[in-house]
Amino acid sequence: MQVIDGNAIAEAIIKELTKEVSAFTERKPVVAFIRVGEDPASVSYVRKKQKTAERIGIESRLHLFPEDVSERELFNQIDTLNSDSTVNGILIQAPLPRHLNETATFNRVHPEKDVDGFNTLNIGKLCQEDASGFVACTPAGIVELIKRSQIETEGRHVVVLGRSQIVGKPAALLMMRKGLPGNATVTVCHSRTKDLPSITRQADVLIAAIGRPNFVTGDMVKEGVAVIDVGINRLEDRSKKSGYRLVGDVEFITVAPKADYLTPVPGGVGPMTVAMLMQNTVRAFHLAQNK
Amino acid sequence: MQVIDGNAIAEAIIKELTKEVSAFTERKPVVAFIRVGEDPASVSYVRKKQKTAERIGIESRLHLFPEDVSERELFNQIDTLNSDSTVNGILIQAPLPRHLNETATFNRVHPEKDVDGFNTLNIGKLCQEDASGFVACTPAGIVELIKRSQIETEGRHVVVLGRSQIVGKPAALLMMRKGLPGNATVTVCHSRTKDLPSITRQADVLIAAIGRPNFVTGDMVKEGVAVIDVGINRLEDRSKKSGYRLVGDVEFITVAPKADYLTPVPGGVGPMTVAMLMQNTVRAFHLAQNK
Repeated sequence: MQVIDGNAIAEAIIKELTKEVSAFTERKPVVAFIRVGEDPASVSYVRKKQKTAERIGIESRLHLFPEDVSERELFNQIDTLNSDSTVNGILIQAPLPRHLNETATFNRVHPEKDVDGFNTLNIGKLCQEDASGFVACTPAGIVELIKRSQIETEGRHVVVLGRSQIVGKPAALLMMRKGLPGNATVTVCHSRTKDLPSITRQADVLIAAIGRPNFVTGDMVKEGVAVIDVGINRLEDRSKKSGYRLVGDVEFITVAPKADYLTPVPGGVGPMTVAMLMQNTVRAFHLAQNK
Repeated sequence: MQVIDGNAIAEAIIKELTKEVSAFTERKPVVAFIRVGEDPASVSYVRKKQKTAERIGIESRLHLFPEDVSERELFNQIDTLNSDSTVNGILIQAPLPRHLNETATFNRVHPEKDVDGFNTLNIGKLCQEDASGFVACTPAGIVELIKRSQIETEGRHVVVLGRSQIVGKPAALLMMRKGLPGNATVTVCHSRTKDLPSITRQADVLIAAIGRPNFVTGDMVKEGVAVIDVGINRLEDRSKKSGYRLVGDVEFITVAPKADYLTPVPGGVGPMTVAMLMQNTVRAFHLAQNK
């Protein structure tokens, strides 16, 4: 059994990007972050993205807004960044406060600067297998993990657990598309699925993105499966300083003995999303340069 | 076993729309057709759509171009129709001659007039379960057949045969979305799928859109399945005046004895696509009126 080291794979991608960016002599890629409010998780995520950008040589610019910012003010900032030719990528850190419409906000970002891949047009391009769009970072990270771990998908049965718009559906579309990784038979399961274990047991590749701690157990998979665990759930743990520990959607201890490949949590898909954001930013830079 | 009468269901929808449109006193919906060249099938399809529009009280306008029309000339016409406030829907009859890029042409149509549902933005909305978009007519027709035949989908296993961008993928997305019809476990199979019969035999609902005559045979389905046959294939038949007969992707004679529901070819999904085009046009009219 191979535990897929997401940290190592993300690190390899970051090194490749660093080398690529070091060759850009005239201008460097620029990513703009918009953060609304002081949610600790958001603060931490944006900081991490900024640090990684800095390592690669991508300039990042942070725009902070108070929790009660109006949609108009937020959209004005997005519009300014859209028309600023020095800015290549724009990321609006989710979640947004309730009074703001996330879909409308993400769609305000120009599709060519939508390094988060949440714009409706980029989702349509993903569905149409139009490679000119941006793929959302988590599903793109899943595909990259599969590719770099040389897990076969052609003609194999990929079962996706979860039908969310930011993970389950795009991951399913990527796995069924023509090409590699892809060309898989794909099943999407979710909370309404009947007799779920009879489906998950068919999986050659299982992508778990259902958001329930330790949900997938050993009896739900077959021998030789490759498991990509997208879940990041907090479980109370008094032995930890933080008072909790992170677990995935997959029960590692019972699934590991049957799996050929398995991503850990943390250290699996998680680090890949930041790496994919950086990759999208560098791509946005190329697109802008070639215009 | 119930043979689903697509003609009767389409007729019911057309009657509903006729009644709805008759109540519009000030203005009537308008759909514009663009046809390039004289391909006999395209001529016949457009004529049929025009006839149905006329029955409902939808005004149709036909714009014809020669086979060698330039992209610029075609786009100029689309732009004119986009900005013409009396036009609610625009349909560009496919296939287009090879020198024209279909995706670019369909994307030239304003998303709010894209009654064919081929615009990338509308495909993205379908994926995001945003009901403000237009769903392409064939997948919309499949859903409507399922709905009006009261075929259950909640928690059931829908197997889609074919991963095309205009049928397979949107049908799969519609079947997995939250709501009814929907909430299904969905598997997408295609030419690369290994051991296809083992998958199709699991189907509670089988949507065949693979474009191969009589491909699905009785041994590939289970007792009680509901089968939606999207295929329209020509088979040589010297006993016919035309020299051919139309058959679906499903071998009716062997599948019928096992199925609870089955759509015939012709007379199943086919008539629904025209009805759905009309429904989209009336919806585009409402959207324009409410602006």
